[in-house]
Amino acid sequence: MFFSQDCTLCRPHLRCMKPCAKLNCPVRHLRRIIYYLDSAIHTLDICIYFFTFTELAEAIIRAKNRNVVVRIILEDSMTHTDKSQIMNFYKEGIKPVFKSLDVLVHHKFVIIDNNIVMTGSINWTKSAFFGNFENVLVTNESAIVKPFVNEFERILTMLTATTTETNSETLDIH
Amino acid sequence: MFFSQDCTLCRPHLRCMKPCAKLNCPVRHLRRIIYYLDSAIHTLDICIYFFTFTELAEAIIRAKNRNVVVRIILEDSMTHTDKSQIMNFYKEGIKPVFKSLDVLVHHKFVIIDNNIVMTGSINWTKSAFFGNFENVLVTNESAIVKPFVNEFERILTMLTATTTETNSETLDIH
Repeated sequence: MFFSQDCTLCRPHLRCMKPCAKLNCPVRHLRRIIYYLDSAIHTLDICIYFFTFTELAEAIIRAKNRNVVVRIILEDSMTHTDKSQIMNFYKEGIKPVFKSLDVLVHHKFVIIDNNIVMTGSINWTKSAFFGNFENVLVTNESAIVKPFVNEFERILTMLTATTTETNSETLDIH
Repeated sequence: MFFSQDCTLCRPHLRCMKPCAKLNCPVRHLRRIIYYLDSAIHTLDICIYFFTFTELAEAIIRAKNRNVVVRIILEDSMTHTDKSQIMNFYKEGIKPVFKSLDVLVHHKFVIIDNNIVMTGSINWTKSAFFGNFENVLVTNESAIVKPFVNEFERILTMLTATTTETNSETLDIH
């Protein structure tokens, strides 16, 4: 999936979630990504640098509500913006993992049921989907999926060792 | 290829370009990327948001010097930083294409001989390679490579329509 400057024109199609005739209408791509998220049965592992896009957050919350195990890793410095979806996740019982580091968690990938990977250059923000030149690659090839599965576990282990308590304190979540 | 926080420790290995025993030593990954760049025979198509990494620029210049056709698309707003490799490319006769837009050229991919794609989350900067959590996927699967080839041509056509003259004037290159 490719996104580019001409996607800006398709922003109105988001209101009704109906793509236009253009093959690269970003609403078409968005619907495809949501389709994959909605297809999750067991697990949804998400590692995204910057996540503000409501429609994608809603698909993740739907997954949680049908008992899919949802795990989210975010970049700490991007969780402090007004548009971050972090509070919506917390309200729905999903606790994203993030940690203040002197480096960036710059990934933009999602793993569905340990079977499909979506990865690329795109952060999950409306402006990235509707205007930027971006790409998303979707594959179920195990030679690609498996390393992402392992890396997600590795990062999660690395960040959760001391993260959970800090986050809960900072966000005053009970 | 995955990069993460522990890669920071491997920064000294860059001096001699020798990786340590760690499987994810970033110098090991860097050498692999340079190996692919050095293997280019016909074309090297590069579309990178932020490009400051000297060792990678040198590999591209080597390709140019062995008569590989090198085409580079960069994000305009990132070419004004001190560390941008743009002037080094110009000095060597490579003219990157960039254009001031109200959206970002956020891709991070390279196509070698229309046959191999390297794509992922990583910008070509030293800090991204030595510390950030990042990924690079390398594939020669034509179902993946071909769309990237088409998209590169599409972006290049879109940007070059009015770009070349503007760039030359702005940079005062003769």
